Amino acid sequence: MIYYKTNDNWFGDVRHLAKSWTMVRIMRSVGVIGLYAAVVCLSVELLGLGQFITINTSVFSLLGVILSILLVFRTNSAYDRWWEARKQWGALVNNTRNMAIYVHSMFPAEDKAVRRFMGKHIANFCLALVEHLRSGVKLESLIYLTEEEKEVFASKAHIPNHIALLIFQRLAEAHRQGIINEGDYINIKAQHQSLLDILGACERIKKTPIPFSYAVYLKIFITAYGLLLPFALVNTFHLMSIPLSMFIFFALLGVELLGEEIEDPFGLDCNDLPTGDIAHTIKGNIFEILEARHPESRARELYDKVF
Amino acid sequence: MIYYKTNDNWFGDVRHLAKSWTMVRIMRSVGVIGLYAAVVCLSVELLGLGQFITINTSVFSLLGVILSILLVFRTNSAYDRWWEARKQWGALVNNTRNMAIYVHSMFPAEDKAVRRFMGKHIANFCLALVEHLRSGVKLESLIYLTEEEKEVFASKAHIPNHIALLIFQRLAEAHRQGIINEGDYINIKAQHQSLLDILGACERIKKTPIPFSYAVYLKIFITAYGLLLPFALVNTFHLMSIPLSMFIFFALLGVELLGEEIEDPFGLDCNDLPTGDIAHTIKGNIFEILEARHPESRARELYDKVF
Amino acid sequence: MIYYKTNDNWFGDVRHLAKSWTMVRIMRSVGVIGLYAAVVCLSVELLGLGQFITINTSVFSLLGVILSILLVFRTNSAYDRWWEARKQWGALVNNTRNMAIYVHSMFPAEDKAVRRFMGKHIANFCLALVEHLRSGVKLESLIYLTEEEKEVFASKAHIPNHIALLIFQRLAEAHRQGIINEGDYINIKAQHQSLLDILGACERIKKTPIPFSYAVYLKIFITAYGLLLPFALVNTFHLMSIPLSMFIFFALLGVELLGEEIEDPFGLDCNDLPTGDIAHTIKGNIFEILEARHPESRARELYDKVF
Amino acid sequence: MIYYKTNDNWFGDVRHLAKSWTMVRIMRSVGVIGLYAAVVCLSVELLGLGQFITINTSVFSLLGVILSILLVFRTNSAYDRWWEARKQWGALVNNTRNMAIYVHSMFPAEDKAVRRFMGKHIANFCLALVEHLRSGVKLESLIYLTEEEKEVFASKAHIPNHIALLIFQRLAEAHRQGIINEGDYINIKAQHQSLLDILGACERIKKTPIPFSYAVYLKIFITAYGLLLPFALVNTFHLMSIPLSMFIFFALLGVELLGEEIEDPFGLDCNDLPTGDIAHTIKGNIFEILEARHPESRARELYDKVF
Amino acid sequence: MIYYKTNDNWFGDVRHLAKSWTMVRIMRSVGVIGLYAAVVCLSVELLGLGQFITINTSVFSLLGVILSILLVFRTNSAYDRWWEARKQWGALVNNTRNMAIYVHSMFPAEDKAVRRFMGKHIANFCLALVEHLRSGVKLESLIYLTEEEKEVFASKAHIPNHIALLIFQRLAEAHRQGIINEGDYINIKAQHQSLLDILGACERIKKTPIPFSYAVYLKIFITAYGLLLPFALVNTFHLMSIPLSMFIFFALLGVELLGEEIEDPFGLDCNDLPTGDIAHTIKGNIFEILEARHPESRARELYDKVF
Repeated sequence: MIYYKTNDNWFGDVRHLAKSWTMVRIMRSVGVIGLYAAVVCLSVELLGLGQFITINTSVFSLLGVILSILLVFRTNSAYDRWWEARKQWGALVNNTRNMAIYVHSMFPAEDKAVRRFMGKHIANFCLALVEHLRSGVKLESLIYLTEEEKEVFASKAHIPNHIALLIFQRLAEAHRQGIINEGDYINIKAQHQSLLDILGACERIKKTPIPFSYAVYLKIFITAYGLLLPFALVNTFHLMSIPLSMFIFFALLGVELLGEEIEDPFGLDCNDLPTGDIAHTIKGNIFEILEARHPESRARELYDKVF
Repeated sequence: MIYYKTNDNWFGDVRHLAKSWTMVRIMRSVGVIGLYAAVVCLSVELLGLGQFITINTSVFSLLGVILSILLVFRTNSAYDRWWEARKQWGALVNNTRNMAIYVHSMFPAEDKAVRRFMGKHIANFCLALVEHLRSGVKLESLIYLTEEEKEVFASKAHIPNHIALLIFQRLAEAHRQGIINEGDYINIKAQHQSLLDILGACERIKKTPIPFSYAVYLKIFITAYGLLLPFALVNTFHLMSIPLSMFIFFALLGVELLGEEIEDPFGLDCNDLPTGDIAHTIKGNIFEILEARHPESRARELYDKVF
Repeated sequence: MIYYKTNDNWFGDVRHLAKSWTMVRIMRSVGVIGLYAAVVCLSVELLGLGQFITINTSVFSLLGVILSILLVFRTNSAYDRWWEARKQWGALVNNTRNMAIYVHSMFPAEDKAVRRFMGKHIANFCLALVEHLRSGVKLESLIYLTEEEKEVFASKAHIPNHIALLIFQRLAEAHRQGIINEGDYINIKAQHQSLLDILGACERIKKTPIPFSYAVYLKIFITAYGLLLPFALVNTFHLMSIPLSMFIFFALLGVELLGEEIEDPFGLDCNDLPTGDIAHTIKGNIFEILEARHPESRARELYDKVF
Repeated sequence: MIYYKTNDNWFGDVRHLAKSWTMVRIMRSVGVIGLYAAVVCLSVELLGLGQFITINTSVFSLLGVILSILLVFRTNSAYDRWWEARKQWGALVNNTRNMAIYVHSMFPAEDKAVRRFMGKHIANFCLALVEHLRSGVKLESLIYLTEEEKEVFASKAHIPNHIALLIFQRLAEAHRQGIINEGDYINIKAQHQSLLDILGACERIKKTPIPFSYAVYLKIFITAYGLLLPFALVNTFHLMSIPLSMFIFFALLGVELLGEEIEDPFGLDCNDLPTGDIAHTIKGNIFEILEARHPESRARELYDKVF
Repeated sequence: MIYYKTNDNWFGDVRHLAKSWTMVRIMRSVGVIGLYAAVVCLSVELLGLGQFITINTSVFSLLGVILSILLVFRTNSAYDRWWEARKQWGALVNNTRNMAIYVHSMFPAEDKAVRRFMGKHIANFCLALVEHLRSGVKLESLIYLTEEEKEVFASKAHIPNHIALLIFQRLAEAHRQGIINEGDYINIKAQHQSLLDILGACERIKKTPIPFSYAVYLKIFITAYGLLLPFALVNTFHLMSIPLSMFIFFALLGVELLGEEIEDPFGLDCNDLPTGDIAHTIKGNIFEILEARHPESRARELYDKVF
């Protein structure tokens, strides 16, 4: 994710243009359409074919408005996913912090083992989730795992599920032994439950893009629109049609590609959510609460970026 | 459901075009309107009837904008259903996973019978729901049913209801006998309650399409628009009106048919939700938690697709 | 409510046209505007008054776009009510089913009286709600009421409230006597609470239409637009203005009337929710759970329609 | 609030026009713009200044569309507040009814004092809220207050807060003394908590109008648009520009003023919510449940209006 | 935040124009575009370059509509953040009030220490949150801190987290010692949990602006549009193009800048939320409930503004 400041100077943002892969992609496509429009317009102008072309801008205006209305629908649905994903990771921050506070308050102050156990597994849940939403959990990215645990983890198909199970088993055990009381047990359940709720919501966002037919429909629409555009403009605007085609195509294609970019927000694209940074910040927060550990400088720096 | 990757190459998606039945249907309707427009335009041009036609594009532009605004309303409401249905099935995944974790943590470790009982009935609830939302539950698609259970199930009008009852009766029984304690009993209720909440939400989505009058109104509007379109275009664009009519009709009809397609997301159309796959994945997840069973390869493959 | 199948053949829906009272109303209004346009256009054409009319379509295009944007706002708010009402009734289904399951699981198996009591009052709550949202509860539509109960009910201003009170009093009584335990008591409260929450939400939808000023504003706007429309069209389209006026008026008035129709979804109009059918299905569901009664054929048939 | 029936006859609504202060205000502004347009058009026509005016409708069409899109955003946000406020008051109805039911079920049947105490303070909470959202609580509008209570109330800065405190203190006291049990105490807390949640939400809606810059921006936009409009129209439409200016201004200004009207829904404007009526109905409902009091005729009449 | 009254006189609002920094910024940009347009138009007119310019308004109309549709999407997302932030602070008010009521009701009446402790830390949580969402917590803005506490606080990376921990530890301690009972402990947890939920939501809003690519895309679009606009207008409107360019640019740029302004609502800009005032009002409310302290005049005045 590119960190930037809103409300700053206008051209400051434009400067980072090349960093956004999608902006590069848009610009490249606009260049292609420019070339295509140049070929069309020059042929028409030089060979004097204008008389055979009877389409004009009025129909393209209508089609452009229809298309842009559809594109906003598409943008809304893509943005909603992106924002919901951000909300889920925000909820993960809240719930893990609260969980750490409850663990710290409800277990006897001298029981350092349970604090270490909880800190480790909650942090691992978040770290595992980062990779789980990309290409699969890498055990080496988890912390404090014993060799034995590594073996068990490796045999599981769904590692975050397993970690959630470990955390709850420990709580249920402590409750049965009377170490934590009824109220605490009922209270902390909401936080534990949210772990899998967040996990499931992120899986849903990742695995369910916009329905296939919509994606195809829009691509056909935009492609056809782009191909016919120079013909619609050339008789009125002559060579000016080339930049105008590029501008209109920039407007329409841009929305589509930006929508595609943010639809899957868990990857490493420049507009994707900084899930890795968030997970590390959670780790710092939890250990600060549970073990009064002072976060190392890296954590502080992350902190400034993400929270 | 067609699985595809966003953000990939542009024409990759267009290639799968023929797989989407709705896209085929759109293309077919566009072909019909093309034929119709051809007949109209050729008649007008050859017989020189242009002078009798006084309508032009300005009014059709207005009507096109009105229509497209309405169609986006229709698309939004259809998409909201589809996405809500996906959310409900996502919640089913979360809640069944959590339920398995709570069952596994709160019952004594040596009680294998209750784990088998819960795993079987939770999985059956999901498998039954898949068919319940199509044409009715098929008992042979459920797992581990004894002959006796099959008979009881066959006598019930609403099988998922009955399964939910069985699950809760077992929990209430265990609570009364002191096998599970108060806190666990209160905690697991939220997950159980969600089973029927999800079921009811899916039934609602399936049985309540957009109000009848809206559906009829839009169909009349689109049909009338399509029939008059060639007349509006022919005097200005002559034979070019044929492809232009097709393009405009493609834009407007496409939105309507795509909306119809995703409105009932539980069937077997190519954009419908993969409820069957989700149910099987839930089965795998639950038994992994409850019986430490390693998911068979099929489950893994499903897993990659759905989660 | 008209039951129909989406995604079926196109003209199948159009066939039921006359069944929808609002569609009839729209068509009638369109006819009136057609007559009016005919008078205007014929007068202008025959008397050669065209030169005195200087308005043209450009301004009406702008006004049409503004109007249609407003109408979509109006449609959205009406549809949201309709859909929220459907959600509330869906929640009623879920919560009464869950309530029946909890009652059946938590009371001793041999206590048939409490099952009959709960089944009767939960069903009556739903049946009463149907009429409460129309013209007031009719006692004869409730089931199993003793004469004594009828008298008490008749003396109450708000019968659903009273039924909810009866249900909770019975639960609280059983809890005080130790028949049901703490966990069950806390668990079932969420379902009971939802009864009045749903009731209140439906009352809110019924008694709060869109603010009066909006309704009046839109009516003035549409009326003025319709009255001026033929004048704007006649100089360009001559006699063609008559069908064009009708088409444009169809597009704009249709949205307004459809919005009005679904705004109060609890009546007996053809697009209103089938609340009566839902209530009867709930009755069937509850008694199937509580008394293992096999639903009669009528219930089954309803079931296919509603769920 | 003006009570009216949707779906009735068209001109029935238009008849109440003068009752809506905002409609009057819109009409007055439209009259002013008409005068202004008359002056402009007559000067231009009579003095033959038309040749110096080069602006035409095309640009104003674009600006009109932009403006109307913005106005719908504004309308949506204002309507959302109005509707959320209505939802909050609906929730107040639900929660106070449920609270009355729980109080009536959980306290010993012979304890009339607590029923009177609760009925009085819940009703007072609602009555106080009505005035609190206008110009401040008036003690004389509250019921059954002793002189002593009046003095205490008068010393408080935030009276609804204080009432909520009194209610909860009584519940906590009864719980400590064992009069109500654990389950009841946990159950009723949700209803009590909602009192302040609703209060806070209403305060938020009241005290946070749309951001100041948006309000100013829209006013400048509309004013400039209205002032330039006659110049844009006069060359094409001559004297017809006067009614056309008025119509366009009616369309745009109407949305803005309607938005302003419903933004603060707690006052006494004709589209404001009938909070006073709702509060009195709640009072009737509560005492019907708690003391089996028959509502007086006034309550019944209110009831028909509000619920 | 600028406090103003809706529904007042029209020009009253316009008068405060200069107070809104964003309005100033918009006006300045509009001035720049005016200068630019003047240079373009004068050159074209005086040097007679009009014949080389073939672009006209039709294409710019289309692009303007597309742009304004996108800008409304942008406005919606920015406004949603602003409004969600306001909701979170509203929830903070509700939850801290409720928390104070529960603390006051559940601890023995004579325990003044716990009331002071809770009042201080709840108030400090809010005061810390204000600065935490700007440039970091300033310890001197917190109240009643002992030197010892100050040292501990200074060593923490995340002070609101630490305060939430202190509050819950005190509650858990009291519960373990039997000072507060099970029901109270379970009841108050919801309020405590919400503290960190609100904190996390505010952090999320602050640190996640609209995706970078969208911001850049819109800036390029608007800049290009503004630069080409005078060329599109000059041939039709001659010198009139200057004010028209300014007006169109005002319409489009205004939306963008207003969106940017409200996107981060926690700062000290004139449209930002009055978080400082809210925090001080919470302080007053809490101490009124917990210690029956009469709010000083400053609090009352704040109160009138914020609640």
